Amino acid sequence: MSGNTLGTLFTVTTFGESHGPAIGCVIDGCPPGLALTQADIQLELDRRKPGTSRHVTQRKEDDIVEILSGVFDGVTTGAPLGLLIRNTDQRSKDYGNLSETFRPGHADYTYWHKYGVRDYRGGGRSSARLTAPLVAAGAVAKKWLHEQLKIKIQAYMAALGEIQIPFIDWAHVSENPFFAPNVEIVPQLEAYMDQLRKEGDSIGARISIVASGVPVGLGEPVFDKLDAAIAHAMMGINAVKGVEIGAGFASIAQRGSQHGDELTPTGFLSNHAGGILGGISSGQNITVSIAIKPTASIRTPRRSIDKTGTPTMVETFGRHDPCVGIRATPIAEALLALVLIDHVLRHRAQCGDVQVATPRISA
Amino acid sequence: MSGNTLGTLFTVTTFGESHGPAIGCVIDGCPPGLALTQADIQLELDRRKPGTSRHVTQRKEDDIVEILSGVFDGVTTGAPLGLLIRNTDQRSKDYGNLSETFRPGHADYTYWHKYGVRDYRGGGRSSARLTAPLVAAGAVAKKWLHEQLKIKIQAYMAALGEIQIPFIDWAHVSENPFFAPNVEIVPQLEAYMDQLRKEGDSIGARISIVASGVPVGLGEPVFDKLDAAIAHAMMGINAVKGVEIGAGFASIAQRGSQHGDELTPTGFLSNHAGGILGGISSGQNITVSIAIKPTASIRTPRRSIDKTGTPTMVETFGRHDPCVGIRATPIAEALLALVLIDHVLRHRAQCGDVQVATPRISA
Amino acid sequence: MSGNTLGTLFTVTTFGESHGPAIGCVIDGCPPGLALTQADIQLELDRRKPGTSRHVTQRKEDDIVEILSGVFDGVTTGAPLGLLIRNTDQRSKDYGNLSETFRPGHADYTYWHKYGVRDYRGGGRSSARLTAPLVAAGAVAKKWLHEQLKIKIQAYMAALGEIQIPFIDWAHVSENPFFAPNVEIVPQLEAYMDQLRKEGDSIGARISIVASGVPVGLGEPVFDKLDAAIAHAMMGINAVKGVEIGAGFASIAQRGSQHGDELTPTGFLSNHAGGILGGISSGQNITVSIAIKPTASIRTPRRSIDKTGTPTMVETFGRHDPCVGIRATPIAEALLALVLIDHVLRHRAQCGDVQVATPRISA
Amino acid sequence: MSGNTLGTLFTVTTFGESHGPAIGCVIDGCPPGLALTQADIQLELDRRKPGTSRHVTQRKEDDIVEILSGVFDGVTTGAPLGLLIRNTDQRSKDYGNLSETFRPGHADYTYWHKYGVRDYRGGGRSSARLTAPLVAAGAVAKKWLHEQLKIKIQAYMAALGEIQIPFIDWAHVSENPFFAPNVEIVPQLEAYMDQLRKEGDSIGARISIVASGVPVGLGEPVFDKLDAAIAHAMMGINAVKGVEIGAGFASIAQRGSQHGDELTPTGFLSNHAGGILGGISSGQNITVSIAIKPTASIRTPRRSIDKTGTPTMVETFGRHDPCVGIRATPIAEALLALVLIDHVLRHRAQCGDVQVATPRISA
Repeated sequence: MSGNTLGTLFTVTTFGESHGPAIGCVIDGCPPGLALTQADIQLELDRRKPGTSRHVTQRKEDDIVEILSGVFDGVTTGAPLGLLIRNTDQRSKDYGNLSETFRPGHADYTYWHKYGVRDYRGGGRSSARLTAPLVAAGAVAKKWLHEQLKIKIQAYMAALGEIQIPFIDWAHVSENPFFAPNVEIVPQLEAYMDQLRKEGDSIGARISIVASGVPVGLGEPVFDKLDAAIAHAMMGINAVKGVEIGAGFASIAQRGSQHGDELTPTGFLSNHAGGILGGISSGQNITVSIAIKPTASIRTPRRSIDKTGTPTMVETFGRHDPCVGIRATPIAEALLALVLIDHVLRHRAQCGDVQVATPRISA
Repeated sequence: MSGNTLGTLFTVTTFGESHGPAIGCVIDGCPPGLALTQADIQLELDRRKPGTSRHVTQRKEDDIVEILSGVFDGVTTGAPLGLLIRNTDQRSKDYGNLSETFRPGHADYTYWHKYGVRDYRGGGRSSARLTAPLVAAGAVAKKWLHEQLKIKIQAYMAALGEIQIPFIDWAHVSENPFFAPNVEIVPQLEAYMDQLRKEGDSIGARISIVASGVPVGLGEPVFDKLDAAIAHAMMGINAVKGVEIGAGFASIAQRGSQHGDELTPTGFLSNHAGGILGGISSGQNITVSIAIKPTASIRTPRRSIDKTGTPTMVETFGRHDPCVGIRATPIAEALLALVLIDHVLRHRAQCGDVQVATPRISA
Repeated sequence: MSGNTLGTLFTVTTFGESHGPAIGCVIDGCPPGLALTQADIQLELDRRKPGTSRHVTQRKEDDIVEILSGVFDGVTTGAPLGLLIRNTDQRSKDYGNLSETFRPGHADYTYWHKYGVRDYRGGGRSSARLTAPLVAAGAVAKKWLHEQLKIKIQAYMAALGEIQIPFIDWAHVSENPFFAPNVEIVPQLEAYMDQLRKEGDSIGARISIVASGVPVGLGEPVFDKLDAAIAHAMMGINAVKGVEIGAGFASIAQRGSQHGDELTPTGFLSNHAGGILGGISSGQNITVSIAIKPTASIRTPRRSIDKTGTPTMVETFGRHDPCVGIRATPIAEALLALVLIDHVLRHRAQCGDVQVATPRISA
Repeated sequence: MSGNTLGTLFTVTTFGESHGPAIGCVIDGCPPGLALTQADIQLELDRRKPGTSRHVTQRKEDDIVEILSGVFDGVTTGAPLGLLIRNTDQRSKDYGNLSETFRPGHADYTYWHKYGVRDYRGGGRSSARLTAPLVAAGAVAKKWLHEQLKIKIQAYMAALGEIQIPFIDWAHVSENPFFAPNVEIVPQLEAYMDQLRKEGDSIGARISIVASGVPVGLGEPVFDKLDAAIAHAMMGINAVKGVEIGAGFASIAQRGSQHGDELTPTGFLSNHAGGILGGISSGQNITVSIAIKPTASIRTPRRSIDKTGTPTMVETFGRHDPCVGIRATPIAEALLALVLIDHVLRHRAQCGDVQVATPRISA
C-alpha cells in the first residue's frame, strides 16, 4: 500500500511539498454522474485558506484549484479526478537558517533519519500546507454524500487551549475565524491569541466533528471498523495527538448501565456510542473529537542539535500559525467525509444496499 | 481491501465466531528464518485466557493453538502461518433468548442491519473472543521485533473506572489478574469488582502501552503515519472509544514552549510527542493510551426493541466480563507489535535499512 | 499487499504446504445470505482430487473440507469463511533425497535463494496441492455468481501436447478424466499418456475457459481491467506459461476490419475480443486460453547442482503427474470465478448496479 | 484498491483523458536518494512521442513532462513524485460524429454501459494517450533499477502482422521507427504499412521484452508471483490480447525432459522458463512476449449501433495509428520496469536483501 493514499475504494493520493511547484491529488473510484464544478471545490478550499485573519499564517496563497481530469459535460465520468493547486508564495529565504538543524517538535529530525534527505523548506512534505488537496478531495466526497444520502458533516472548535467553548449554534461557526460555535466568546479567544503572538508561543485546541443522516451499516469489521478508519484518518492530521468517539475517554469511569444507549421504537435514548456500535454505524450522529497539539514553530528559542550532533538553539521566523487548530475544522470535516464515502462504497460492494437516513426498525 | 485483514506487508487475516467450530488467523509476510514453536505463541495466549480469575469471564477455553503451516525445521519459511484454535466450551443455550432482540451497546443492532443475518450466539463475529487469534499473531511479531531489533512492548492497566493506578514497577504487571503495575492497589480493585458483580453492572478502564527500543524512521506519511496506524489498530479493539499518543488530550492546554521536546546530543529532554514526530518514530519510547468502555453485557435489565420494533427489556445471563478492560492488556500489546513489525518491513522496503535502537545523531 | 491473498473485495488468503498438517484458506468479503453447505464445496473439490485415475498423481488424499466459520443457519453471514483441509497422505520419505539438490524446472532453486530456508517435501508451498483451497474458494464464488447473475463458468482441455482436441460437446467434459470436450479422442489421449509414463517424461497442455451470462461493465480500468486481472490469476497457476483472451496471439496477424467485432441491435457478430473491450466485459462470453508447461518432476535423470554448487544428477521418484494440465480444468474455472465475483463487487461499489445477462442497447 | 493504481510499494496512479487539460501520474514509494531530472524522464517520453514518423498517429504533442514534487536538490526525497503533461493538440472536432455511436472493437460500448456517461473524444480515459504518464513513471523505475542493481530492460518488435522479424542486434532497435531489431527488414515493413494506410485498415504486432541482470528471488507466491504480476501489467496495455513467458504457448507441446532448464555450477543450460521458476526470478533473463491486436480505429466502414439501438455504420476519421503495436515497445519496457522495482521492494521488505546479478550457487 502506498502511504500517500487514503481510502480503499474512494481513494485520494496526494503529492506536493510546501515549497515545490504545486500540490494536488488524484481521486480514484468516485462514482460517475456527480455534478461537479471547480467552484464546488473552491468553496471548501476558501474556508481553509491562509491569510484570512490575523490569527492564522500570513502566507498569501490563493489556493486556486484546477480540475485536470475526470469531469465531462459537468459530471464525473468515473475516471480519476486530478486536482492541482499551484504554490505561488513560497518564501524560501524564511527557512534558510534551518537546513542544518532540527526544530523541536517537528518532523525535521525523523524525516532526515528515515529518508536521508530532507526538503527543509517550510516543512517540505510534512507541512500543513498539504492539507489543501485533502480539503479539495473532501469537497467532492461531501457533495456526493449530501446529494445521494443526505449526510451532513460539520465541525467546530470545542476548546482553545484551556478555554472551553460552549456550543450555542451551528450558524455561528462560519461567523468567526475560529470556527467556534459561539460568537460571544470570540473576543476572549482573540485576546488570548494576541497575547500568545506577543509571547511568541503557541497553544493546542480541541475540534469536534459531527456527521448526521448517516445510514446504518457502514464499517467493515473486524479491522476496518468505521471508528478505526476515522481514528486512522484523524490521527494522521498534522499535530493531532488524540481521537475519541462518543463518550471517548469519559467512558472509562462510566457504568455499563449508564453508557449503553437504550433503544425504543422511535430511536436511541442517548448517544454515548457516538453513532458506532461494534464498529458499524447505527444511524445516530457520529461524534468525534480530536486533540491538536500546540505548533512546534514558535519564536521562543529552544534547545536542539544540528546534523553533526552539536548543541544549538533554534528559533523560527517567517510566517506561522500560533494555533494550527484554528484551521483544522475544514480539514477534519474533509477527512470524515472521505472515510464515510469510502465506507458507503465498501458496504455497497458486499451488501448491495445502504440503509438510508431512517434506521429500519421493523422486520 | 478485506476488512478482516490487518497490516500491509506483515498481514493478519482472522476468521471465526464465538460459537463456531474454531477461530484462527493466517499471517502472511512473516520474514523467514524466525525460530518459532507452538509454545512461543501459547505463552501469550495464556496471558489472555478466560477463566483464570474470578474477575474475568467464566467461559472455560483452553485456547490451545495449533500451527498448521509456515514453519519447517523449527523456523518460519516465509510462507503463510496458519494458526488454529478450536472452540470447546460454547454454551449456546446461554444466548438463546437474545436471538430476536438487540442488546443495548452491543453490535447486535448494527450487524443485523448491515448483513441481514446475524449469528446471535455470544456476539458472533463481534465477540471479544476473536482477540485470541490476534494475540497469537502478536506473539510472532513480538518475538521477531525483540530478536531482530531489541524492541520491547509492554502494557498495563492505568485506571479501573475512576480509580487511578499509580505506576510502581513493570514487574508487578504479571503479578495480578488486572495487569496493574502496582500490587498494593489490587485489593481495592478487587473489592470494586466484587461490588460491580453484585450490582450486575460494569465499568470501563484505561490501558497504557509502551514500546521501547524502537528504531527511528518507522511510519509512512502522510496517511500511513505510525500514530495513525496505531490509532487505527487500537480503536478497532472491541470496546475502545479513545486513543491518545504521548501527551494526548493534555496537549490541548499545553504551550508549544512546553510541549515540544527539546533535543541534546545525548537525546530528547522530554517525551510529550510519545515517540512519534511527523508520523515517524523518533527513537524515543512510543507511549499510547486507550479508553475502554464498560461492557454492554450486564445483568441490569435495559430497554430495547426486538426485530419487529416492539419495545422489550433485555438482560444478559451466562458468562461475562464485568470489565473487558481487564483482559485488554495482552491484546493492546499484540496490536502494537503488529503495527510496528508492519512498519519495519515498509521502511525496509523503501529505505533499505532501519536505524536500530540508538538514534544516529551525528552526520 | 500480501502475496498470498487474491482479490480486492472478495479475497482469498491461502495457507499450507504439501506436507504440513493442513491446507486451507480464508475467504473475506463474501456477500451475506448465500446458502452454503460443506457439500457445495466438496463437489468442486472432488473434481480435482488426486488418485481418481491412473493418469494423475497417485497420492491418496480425500481432501475433505471443513467450514470453520462464516456460515450460520445455512447461509453466509458476511463474516470470513475459514476452510480447512487436513493432509493425510504425505509420504515424506519420497522426497528425502531431494533436500540438498534443486530439481530443474522446479521452484526449489528460487525458493531457497529467496527465503534462505526451503521446505523440500513435495515442493512445500510451491506444490500444486495448494490449488485445493483455491478450488474450494472458487466453489463459493461460482455458486453466488450463478444464483445471483446466472453466470456459468466452464473449462476444458483443448490440447494435450501436440494433440489438438476438437470440441464436440460440453457434456463430454465430465465424462473422462482429461476434462476433454470429446470422448471419442480419449483412447488416443490415454495411449499417449501411458507411453509418457513408460518413458518417465511429461507433456504440456492447453486449457480453455468460458464464462457465459456475464454482465456488461465488469473491469476497473486502467490497471485492474478484467483481462488484466484474469491474466494475473491464470499466470499464477502453477506451470502456466501463457494466457490469451479471445483471438489471443492470432490477433497479431489479423486485420482490424476482421478482428473488430461488429454490433447489431441483436448483439455482436463475432467475438475476437473474447468478451472484453477496453478492459471491461461486453456481455459476450469471456473466452480465455492458458498454456501449461510439462511437469518438471520426471523420472528422466537431469543435470543439476546441489547447495554447495557441486554438479549432480536429479531424478524424482514417488507420486507425480505426467501432465499437471489434466487437473488444471477445475482450477482454472475456480480462478475465473474468483476474478469475476471480485469485479462484480467492485463494479457494484462504484457504479451501484450490474447490467445483468442481456446488454442494455437502448437509451 | 483503486483501479488506476499499479503496484504495491512502488505505486503509480495515473489520471487524465485524451482531450482533457492534462494527463499525469503520482509515483509513491520511490526510494529516496535517486538522482532525477526532468531530462531523465523526457528521454523515455520522446521515444514514445506521436508524430515522429508517418507510421504513427499524426497528433502533434510535445509531451513535455513537468516534475511537480518529490525531488529536492536533484534527488528524490521519498515523497510522492507528481508528474504532469499538458495536452496541447486535442482536435475535438475530429471525434464529434462519434458521440452517439459505438466503434466496433473499442471501449465505447463498455464504458457507456459501465459508467452511464462517456467522454467520447479520442477514447477519453481508454485512449492510448494515457500510456504517456506510464512511460514517464517507467523512466524513474528504469533508472533506479539500473543504478542500484544493473538491471537492463529492452524490448523490440518481433513481428508486424504476419511478417516475422529476425533478431539481428539490439543496436538496430533505436535506428528505425518500428523498434525492429533488424534494419534490413524495415523497407518491407514500411511498404506493408503504406499499403495498410491506403486500404484504411490496421494490423497487429508481437512485442518481446527482455530484462537482464535480474536478481534471483523476485516474486511473491502464491498469487503475486513475478510472472503473474507481469501478465497483469502487460495484459492491461491497450490492445494486448495475449502474454507469454519463456517458451510460452510452445510449452504445450514440449516434453519435460526438453522444457526443464538444467543447472550447472556456471548457470542454467537453457531458458524455457523465461527467467521465472515457481513465480520467482531465477537470475536468468526474463523473456516476455505480448500479442497486440489491430487498432479498432480504421477508415473501413463497419456495422454498429447507436445509443438508441439503431443500426448504423461507423467510420473513423482524424489521426490514427494503423498499428498501435509500433509504439508499444517503450510502453512494455516501462511496465516491466515498474513490475520489477515493485518486486525488488517487496522482496527487500520480507527478506531483507536482494541477490544481485550473479546468482549465488554455493552454500
